[in-house]
Amino acid sequence: MADYFEKVLMEAETNYYLETYRLTSENFVGMDGPPWEINKFTLKGGKQHGVELVEIDNGCMSVLIVPSRGMGILEACTDEVSLGWNSRVRQVVHPSFVDQTARGGLGWLSGFNEMMCRCGLAFHGAPGEDMVPSNTGAEKKVDLTLHGTIANSPASYLCVDVQLEPPYELSVTGRVYDTQMFGPSYRLTSTVSTTPGASEFRVDDMIENLNATPSEMELLYHCNFGPPLLGEGARVLAPVKFACPRDARAKEGMDQWETYGPPDVDFTEQVYFLRLHGDANDRTVVALVDPQEQMAASIRFSTTELPAFTIWKNTMAEADGYVTGLEPGTDYPNSRSFERDKGRVAQLPAGGSCNISLVFGVASGAEQVAALRDEISRLAEGKERRVSPEVDPEYCPA
Amino acid sequence: MADYFEKVLMEAETNYYLETYRLTSENFVGMDGPPWEINKFTLKGGKQHGVELVEIDNGCMSVLIVPSRGMGILEACTDEVSLGWNSRVRQVVHPSFVDQTARGGLGWLSGFNEMMCRCGLAFHGAPGEDMVPSNTGAEKKVDLTLHGTIANSPASYLCVDVQLEPPYELSVTGRVYDTQMFGPSYRLTSTVSTTPGASEFRVDDMIENLNATPSEMELLYHCNFGPPLLGEGARVLAPVKFACPRDARAKEGMDQWETYGPPDVDFTEQVYFLRLHGDANDRTVVALVDPQEQMAASIRFSTTELPAFTIWKNTMAEADGYVTGLEPGTDYPNSRSFERDKGRVAQLPAGGSCNISLVFGVASGAEQVAALRDEISRLAEGKERRVSPEVDPEYCPA
Amino acid sequence: MADYFEKVLMEAETNYYLETYRLTSENFVGMDGPPWEINKFTLKGGKQHGVELVEIDNGCMSVLIVPSRGMGILEACTDEVSLGWNSRVRQVVHPSFVDQTARGGLGWLSGFNEMMCRCGLAFHGAPGEDMVPSNTGAEKKVDLTLHGTIANSPASYLCVDVQLEPPYELSVTGRVYDTQMFGPSYRLTSTVSTTPGASEFRVDDMIENLNATPSEMELLYHCNFGPPLLGEGARVLAPVKFACPRDARAKEGMDQWETYGPPDVDFTEQVYFLRLHGDANDRTVVALVDPQEQMAASIRFSTTELPAFTIWKNTMAEADGYVTGLEPGTDYPNSRSFERDKGRVAQLPAGGSCNISLVFGVASGAEQVAALRDEISRLAEGKERRVSPEVDPEYCPA
Repeated sequence: MADYFEKVLMEAETNYYLETYRLTSENFVGMDGPPWEINKFTLKGGKQHGVELVEIDNGCMSVLIVPSRGMGILEACTDEVSLGWNSRVRQVVHPSFVDQTARGGLGWLSGFNEMMCRCGLAFHGAPGEDMVPSNTGAEKKVDLTLHGTIANSPASYLCVDVQLEPPYELSVTGRVYDTQMFGPSYRLTSTVSTTPGASEFRVDDMIENLNATPSEMELLYHCNFGPPLLGEGARVLAPVKFACPRDARAKEGMDQWETYGPPDVDFTEQVYFLRLHGDANDRTVVALVDPQEQMAASIRFSTTELPAFTIWKNTMAEADGYVTGLEPGTDYPNSRSFERDKGRVAQLPAGGSCNISLVFGVASGAEQVAALRDEISRLAEGKERRVSPEVDPEYCPA
Repeated sequence: MADYFEKVLMEAETNYYLETYRLTSENFVGMDGPPWEINKFTLKGGKQHGVELVEIDNGCMSVLIVPSRGMGILEACTDEVSLGWNSRVRQVVHPSFVDQTARGGLGWLSGFNEMMCRCGLAFHGAPGEDMVPSNTGAEKKVDLTLHGTIANSPASYLCVDVQLEPPYELSVTGRVYDTQMFGPSYRLTSTVSTTPGASEFRVDDMIENLNATPSEMELLYHCNFGPPLLGEGARVLAPVKFACPRDARAKEGMDQWETYGPPDVDFTEQVYFLRLHGDANDRTVVALVDPQEQMAASIRFSTTELPAFTIWKNTMAEADGYVTGLEPGTDYPNSRSFERDKGRVAQLPAGGSCNISLVFGVASGAEQVAALRDEISRLAEGKERRVSPEVDPEYCPA
Repeated sequence: MADYFEKVLMEAETNYYLETYRLTSENFVGMDGPPWEINKFTLKGGKQHGVELVEIDNGCMSVLIVPSRGMGILEACTDEVSLGWNSRVRQVVHPSFVDQTARGGLGWLSGFNEMMCRCGLAFHGAPGEDMVPSNTGAEKKVDLTLHGTIANSPASYLCVDVQLEPPYELSVTGRVYDTQMFGPSYRLTSTVSTTPGASEFRVDDMIENLNATPSEMELLYHCNFGPPLLGEGARVLAPVKFACPRDARAKEGMDQWETYGPPDVDFTEQVYFLRLHGDANDRTVVALVDPQEQMAASIRFSTTELPAFTIWKNTMAEADGYVTGLEPGTDYPNSRSFERDKGRVAQLPAGGSCNISLVFGVASGAEQVAALRDEISRLAEGKERRVSPEVDPEYCPA
C-alpha cells in the first residue's frame, strides 16, 4: 500500500507539462479531516503572462507558491490574517520582464512583491563590485546586482505529494536551476508542506552545488509583512543575542528598534543586524506581533543553518510599500565582498549540498500570541543579550 | 438603457484574458453608418511571439494598437496612405527580447518601429548619468537608458467600448504599470478612440503617480512617418514660436530645416527643438505634407500639456529607416539631468495625475491639405516667430 | 512535376505558426530508402518554456535544430555516438532568460549548451570595449558582451523541404533577424540538410547586410564535443599551416596541444589559434578522434569563408563541462577591437551577403577513422607547417 500519492506537474527534462491541475480531498475516498485543495494555474496578461502559481489550501490556511519566481511564496492567508504585503509592484512579474542590471543593478526591485522570496544563491545583498570566475582562469571584476538571480529563475520540475495516512501531509516540491558555464551552478529543491487544518506551513530547501569545485553560496529568506500585522505599535520578537544598527540612519531609531511606527511618507529604511539564541538543537523563532497583540506571524529556523538575522524596517506610506522584512540568512545582505572579508560567506563543497528548513505560522488570539511570546522569551532566558547602540564594523560596511 | 457597450479583454488582476476577440458593426442591430471592426489577436513566431495587437478599423481608417508595447500605435492606414515607417526592426518585438541596457543603454533601438511610441515615464531622451532614488535613502548614480521603460511595458488591462448612439464612438482602453519598489511608480491609462468613417483618431492618456511622494515625469510622443508622406520636398508645418538646431550637425541644415531631402545613405540625423503657438485654449497642430501636397498627417495637442516639440529628421537610405519624427513632449529628449537643470522636468504630486490628449489625422487631396495649412498659419498669424540659427544653450547640451 | 515538397512551419510576417509538425517518409508514397522523420515541437517548463526544436532523423542520424536560439544545433546522434556535450546548462534556455549584459558581459554563458552555436554577427569573442555607431553620428564607446547576439535571436521563418527524387534530400530552413536602428542589421538564412541514411549533415548559411551602408561582421561556429568522443588520449586532426597558443596558460600545454587529457577538476581552458591548409577549392576538414580511434567527428568548411580556426580545450571535470570546441570563424574570438586592428574583421557591403557552408560528419570504425586521417594528412602533405611555441602578438592580445 502506497504511503503517498504523487503527481508530477512539470518535468522540463522530459518536456512534461500541465498548465493547470487541481486536486482536492474529495479525490481521496475515506480521507477524514478538513477539506483541502491544491491548485496549479497560470497567470495571463501584462507582466505576469505565463507566471505559474500553485495554491495549497489546507482548509485553514492558503499558501500561494510561485514556481516561476524561484519557488517564492506570494502570500499565506487564513480567515483572519493575510501574511504578505502590498508592494508597489502589483503584478506577479515574469522573470523575462525583470532586467536585473537596470538602474545600476537595482532592477530586481521591479519584480519584488512576495511574502517570502529567496535572495542568492551565488550572492545577495546590496549591489557592488566583486570578482567572479571567468573562462580564462582570471577572475573578472563585475558589478553584482541586488539580491542575486534565484528569485527570477523558474522551477523546471514540480510535483505534488499527498500522504495517505494521518496527518495527511500535503506538499509541493519544485526544482530550480541557477547555473552557468564558468560560474557557480546550483540546484534548489524546495518542498512546501502543510497538513489539513494547520495554521502553519514548512519550507524545506536543499541547495546542491553541481560543480566539481567548491562554490561560495549566499542565501537569505526575505520574509515580508505589511498590514494588518504591521501597524503603529507592532513589535518584532526575537531571542536576541546581539543586535546593532546598519548605519547612521538605523542608529537614529535605536531606542525603538523592536517596535514599528505608523506609515510615514518621509520614512527611510532602517536595518538591524542580529544574532539569535536557539534551543539545544539550535532551533529558534522570531515573530511579528500586531499592535493589539491579537495576531502574530512566526518564523522558525535553525541558527546553524541561518546564523544571520536581519530586520528591515520600511514603514513608508502604504502606497509606497509599508512593510517590514524579517530575514534569516546564511549571512547579512551587505555586498558579498564585505561578507567574505568577515568570513561569513558559506562554501558548498564540490557536489555538496545543504539543507535549510523554515516553518511559517500564525498565532491567533491573545492566548496564542502570549504563548509565542513566552516561547521566544524562554529561548533567551538567562543568556547574553547585547544590543549595540553603535554601528559595528564587524557587521556594517563603512 | 446603456449608452455604451463595454467588453473587457484582459484584466491581469483577476487573471481574465482573451487571446483573440472580434467585434463588428454587424454585432449591433440597427447601427447605421459605415461598417467597422475591432479585432484583438496575438502574434506568433520570432521576436514577436506573444505580442498582442488590437486593430480598430472604422471603415475609413485602420489603427493598429500594441498593448504589449505600452499601448503604442504600430500604424494607421486609410485607403490612400499609411501613417508609419519602415524600420530596420521588422518584427513587433516582444519586450522580453529587448535588453535596454545593451549597447551602452541604446538597447531600446532593437524594438523601435512604431508610428507612435511613448518615451518615459520616469525619464526619456539620450542615455546619460543621473541620480535615482535607492532603498537606503542615498541617491544612486546610474546610467539611464535611452527613452525609458514605458514602451517595453505591457498593458495589464484592456477593454473595448462602443457608443450605442451616433456618432458611435469606438474605443480601446489599456492600462500599463511602470512601477518598482524605491522608484517612480506610474500607471498609464490610454484610450484610443475614433468614429466610423473618420480619418482621424484620438489618444487620451492619463498618467498617475501611484507613490505617496512626488515623482519626476518625462513623456514624449515619438510620432514617426516615412514614405509615402515623407519624400524629397515634403514639409513640416507648425505654428513656430521658437526653433533652434540641437547641435552643429543640425545647424548645417538650418536653411532648409522645415523641408526634407531624398533618402541619403550618408545622412546623419538632424534634430530641432521648438516651442509652438496654440489657440486660445492652447491647442495646436503640426503636420507633415507630402511633396505633391496631396496628403498630410496632422497631430493636434495642447501646448500646456506638451510644451516641448522636437523634429527629428533622419532621411537616411530607405533600407536604414528613412523617417522623420514629430515629437510633442513634456520636455526635450536630452538627458534628464540637463532637462532638470533647465527646469523642464515635470513633477507629478503624490497620488496625482495628468491628462494628455492627441488627435492624429489624415488630410487627403489638395483642398484638405490647403485647409490644414491655413489652420496652422492662422495659429501663428501676427505672433512672434524666432528661429535661432545657432545652438541655444537653454535647449541644447554642450 | 514538383521537384520538392515544401511546407512552411512559421512565418512571422504573415503571423503563420505551427506549434507542432511531423512529416515522415511514410507520407510519401513510393519513396524508397531508409525511413526518416522531421518533427517540430515546443519545450515547456522552466527556462526552456517556449523553445522550439526541429528534429531531422534521417534514419541513421538525428539532428536537433534550435530555431529559438538562432538556428543552433543542440546535438546530432547516430546509434553509435552523440555529437555534443554535457554543459552545466541543462535546459535549452529561452533567450528571454538570458541577460547578456549580466556578470560583466558574460551572461551569454547562462544559455550555452549547444553542439554548434553561432557567435556574432556584429561581434563575437571576449567582452571588451569597442565603439558602436549611435544615432547622433558620433561613435559611442560601449562594452561589447561575450559572443554577440545571434545565438539568442529566434528564427522568425521556418520551412521544411523534401526532395522528391533520390537522394531525397531533407532540409530545414530558418531565418533569423539580428537588427536594430542605428546599428548593424543582418539576416541569417540557415539551411540544415541531410539525406536518408547518411551519417552527416550540411549547414548552409547566408548572411545578408540589410543596411544601405557597409557593416562589420564577425561569425564563429562554436562546435563543441564532449564524451564519448572526447576522453583521455583523444586527438584533434587538422591540416595545420600555422598554430600558436593564445596565452601563457595555453603555452603550458604546447607539447601536447593536439591531444586531450582526462577530466581534471583544476584544469583551466587552453586556446590555440590556427590557420589551415585546404584543397584546390580551399575546402578543408578537421576532426576529433576518440581515444580508441574507433570514432571521429569531422567538420568540413572553406578556408576562404572561414580563414580562422580556434581550438578550445576545456577538459575540466565532467560535471563542470568536459568539452572541446573546434571553432571555424571569419576571425578569432578575441575582442573585436583587437581583431579589427589586425585587419581580420570582415565587412559586408551595403545590401551584400556572404555564404558559408559546413558539413558535420561521423566516422565510425577504424577504417573510416583511418580514411579521415589520411584525407586530412593529404591536405597538408608537402606544405608549410609552422607551430609557434610562443604567443604571437599578431594573433594574441597582450
